[in-house]
Amino acid sequence: MTSTDNSNLKVKDLSFINDIKSAAVIGPSKRRDYFFLKSHQENFQGPLYAITPTTKEIPGFDDGTQGKIYSSLKEVPGDVDFVFIAVPQSQILDVMSDCAEKGVKLASVFTAEFSDSGTEEGRKLEKELLKRAQGKVRILGPNGMGMSCPKLGIAWRPKFPKTPGNIGLIAQSGGMCNILTYMSLKEGIHFSKIFSFGNGADTDLIDLLYYLSNDPETEIIMIYVEGIKEGRGGDLRKVLAQNKKPIIILRGGRTESGAIAAKTHTAAISGKGEIWKGIIEQQNLIEVESLEQLLYAAKLIDFYGLFNTKNVAVLSISGGYGVIMVDLLEKHGINVPPSFSPGIQEQIKSQFFTKGTSPKNPLDISAQLFASDSVNQIIDLALSDEMIDGLIMDLPSWYFSQDYHIRKNSSFERAMIKCFFLGKKHGKPLIPILQRVNCPEDRARVVKKLTEGKVPVFGDPLEFIPLLPKISKYSRKALNT
Amino acid sequence: MTSTDNSNLKVKDLSFINDIKSAAVIGPSKRRDYFFLKSHQENFQGPLYAITPTTKEIPGFDDGTQGKIYSSLKEVPGDVDFVFIAVPQSQILDVMSDCAEKGVKLASVFTAEFSDSGTEEGRKLEKELLKRAQGKVRILGPNGMGMSCPKLGIAWRPKFPKTPGNIGLIAQSGGMCNILTYMSLKEGIHFSKIFSFGNGADTDLIDLLYYLSNDPETEIIMIYVEGIKEGRGGDLRKVLAQNKKPIIILRGGRTESGAIAAKTHTAAISGKGEIWKGIIEQQNLIEVESLEQLLYAAKLIDFYGLFNTKNVAVLSISGGYGVIMVDLLEKHGINVPPSFSPGIQEQIKSQFFTKGTSPKNPLDISAQLFASDSVNQIIDLALSDEMIDGLIMDLPSWYFSQDYHIRKNSSFERAMIKCFFLGKKHGKPLIPILQRVNCPEDRARVVKKLTEGKVPVFGDPLEFIPLLPKISKYSRKALNT
Repeated sequence: MTSTDNSNLKVKDLSFINDIKSAAVIGPSKRRDYFFLKSHQENFQGPLYAITPTTKEIPGFDDGTQGKIYSSLKEVPGDVDFVFIAVPQSQILDVMSDCAEKGVKLASVFTAEFSDSGTEEGRKLEKELLKRAQGKVRILGPNGMGMSCPKLGIAWRPKFPKTPGNIGLIAQSGGMCNILTYMSLKEGIHFSKIFSFGNGADTDLIDLLYYLSNDPETEIIMIYVEGIKEGRGGDLRKVLAQNKKPIIILRGGRTESGAIAAKTHTAAISGKGEIWKGIIEQQNLIEVESLEQLLYAAKLIDFYGLFNTKNVAVLSISGGYGVIMVDLLEKHGINVPPSFSPGIQEQIKSQFFTKGTSPKNPLDISAQLFASDSVNQIIDLALSDEMIDGLIMDLPSWYFSQDYHIRKNSSFERAMIKCFFLGKKHGKPLIPILQRVNCPEDRARVVKKLTEGKVPVFGDPLEFIPLLPKISKYSRKALNT
Repeated sequence: MTSTDNSNLKVKDLSFINDIKSAAVIGPSKRRDYFFLKSHQENFQGPLYAITPTTKEIPGFDDGTQGKIYSSLKEVPGDVDFVFIAVPQSQILDVMSDCAEKGVKLASVFTAEFSDSGTEEGRKLEKELLKRAQGKVRILGPNGMGMSCPKLGIAWRPKFPKTPGNIGLIAQSGGMCNILTYMSLKEGIHFSKIFSFGNGADTDLIDLLYYLSNDPETEIIMIYVEGIKEGRGGDLRKVLAQNKKPIIILRGGRTESGAIAAKTHTAAISGKGEIWKGIIEQQNLIEVESLEQLLYAAKLIDFYGLFNTKNVAVLSISGGYGVIMVDLLEKHGINVPPSFSPGIQEQIKSQFFTKGTSPKNPLDISAQLFASDSVNQIIDLALSDEMIDGLIMDLPSWYFSQDYHIRKNSSFERAMIKCFFLGKKHGKPLIPILQRVNCPEDRARVVKKLTEGKVPVFGDPLEFIPLLPKISKYSRKALNT
């Protein structure tokens, strides 16, 4: 087997992935309306082949421009770098032999009922599959979705993202990858590679983590893990020790019942909570609690880089909401200093001219909201304070609907969006909460503009406040080393 | 002053509110495009008057069908039960004298700069305002939005809800009320009364709580509070002691910085955390941490009544998401028993016929999702288990878009919605998480149907899981007494 030696580290070499030029879907199924083939056809840039001995014609595919059908891999005239295999289990061994012979570099094996079946027969078949690959074909799976890569146009589902990005994702489970991948479209983050490695018979979490950690196209790594294989703990530590990128980790099976559930799901032994705790602390991983947090943490780092929000400013339209934000921030270990640095505080005060407002921290702008120039000045000043590391603000969605304004005010939206971008100017996170109140279309329009400009919008303070101290802790450690 | 004597309890009598028949907006402002008048005009059923000495014509109002303009309250021929006052501060005393003389029962005083200004002059003016009311006019405010009541059509903002409901809301802050009120439109809950009592010069939190606690139209009470007036602690305890309805409370200023912020916001002394802790525990209040939780807790109780989710079933489409839900539930003290009661478990098992699924708890239905009849049977069986108190399930939004199905499947959505209603059949909470992934229109369509049927849909497990043990604890205590 090809291995990269890194202080006795045993990992598979996957560095060829960025050079994949050609691909084939083996076993496209008419019953599934050629689902996997069509998914790849949506965006794959190079030659794409359908390998099937029984189907002679696939509507919309073999029209001569890109795709071509062959009855076996051996018949394909040129190279085939990547294959997606969805043949019945009975054909898998012959197909893998063909792959090895043809010089296929990477195979996503969707076919299931190997070691995942829990039977001796299944385990044997999985071993035989590896033999047939001869260590020449790197396998993702079996019983997984394999790889998706927007830049190459490799995608196991329809309407997967087409924009290449800087975030790598690893999970055993294809389902988790699907949710995160579709969610990314709305959240404005983009993936370099997405891996669902299923049984991990050949390439496992550690191999993929090593690969992403050294992939020049990946800057942030997200992993969902339920467990690692016996004997791989040492390699995991070594991979993490050499890693320089932020890794956000969601562990399934952290609790007793969760561990039982994980064992049923992927036969993972996730119960070793103590070991994980040690690894997470020592290796400076960012651990989160939900799939949503996994994505939101990546989004915050992607949009603002590393940050350390020790002291933040809060700006609210409703004083009460400001008080609650302060309570939530403090509860999560983030300071909201009651006033700004003296010089700044004076300047901020001079920008307030409306009754019922407050120039302290939390800033309560209340009815002065519509005096957008002053709001812009206030935020700009607050973020210019050396003591302040970021700003959290809220704005209910109806402010972006003309129907709720006292007077038509067509410049308000543009002015507010400008305010939301002030975090970029100061290199400090400014995080708007646009509550999911009403006027969903108006909210969606504003969120889209902000997301495109990499301003992370949330709908509920508890979606992101618990993540700020986690990212800050990571950043402090990472920037010291 | 009119007071209700309830074991020496000092509270104002507001029991006349449901009988309000006529209303006036005093001081409609052309500069504000008659904002408050138009808000009331949207839905007020009885005679509605605009009181202004300077304006002779208000477009769209005084067309003879409902509204009429008078230069002073005294000129109105019939009764005026309720007034919304937005006159400049300099006119407020004369207006209040007119109200007392006219027999107005309730006045919302929007006008500000009384005790809220922090000046001696302001405090004096507030005392004088009470004198002018002669204890005959109950005042909400000053410096508040007063009352909104969908059934009566009293509303201080445009597009406020028109459907009468069973939830009462009390907050000092109008801003908090606005967010919750507009949010309720989307969340499918409805208000009996909404009170923003501002400075609480006459009618305060305790009076309003007593009123809602005894209002036949109110079943659930939500309060946002930053503090109570000196010397009112005993009355608060008495009001809570006689109360039989669930009260959900959000306290602003629970933390040190939050308390400073609250003091700036409403001059509230909220620092007495220990006292509150005692009250909340002894009086069985449901305490939440965010405005969103305040609304979601009310929604859960409104949709399912009281419940005690000690043991729940989990059903997932992606095994990984199921594992995470189990972890989150256990972390919040809710059991997910690894299997069902023996007889039920056997029957559930017989409904599974697809590879890669699991009939244990968490139920992993994976690709069997599209066999909707079996999914319906599985959920029905799980909820019929005496050991099981509820069911949490997830379904990513793209399943409701035809573009993501392998084959067109027009009956799937209807079948799934039927499944989501099974909690109603069993009288146990079934809570769907439809992740906010993609296909927002498809998601919105399904959410609307479920919300109309009082099935509470969430987008993220952390939106509601922390609320389940709080509601359960309340229910256990409440049902024992």
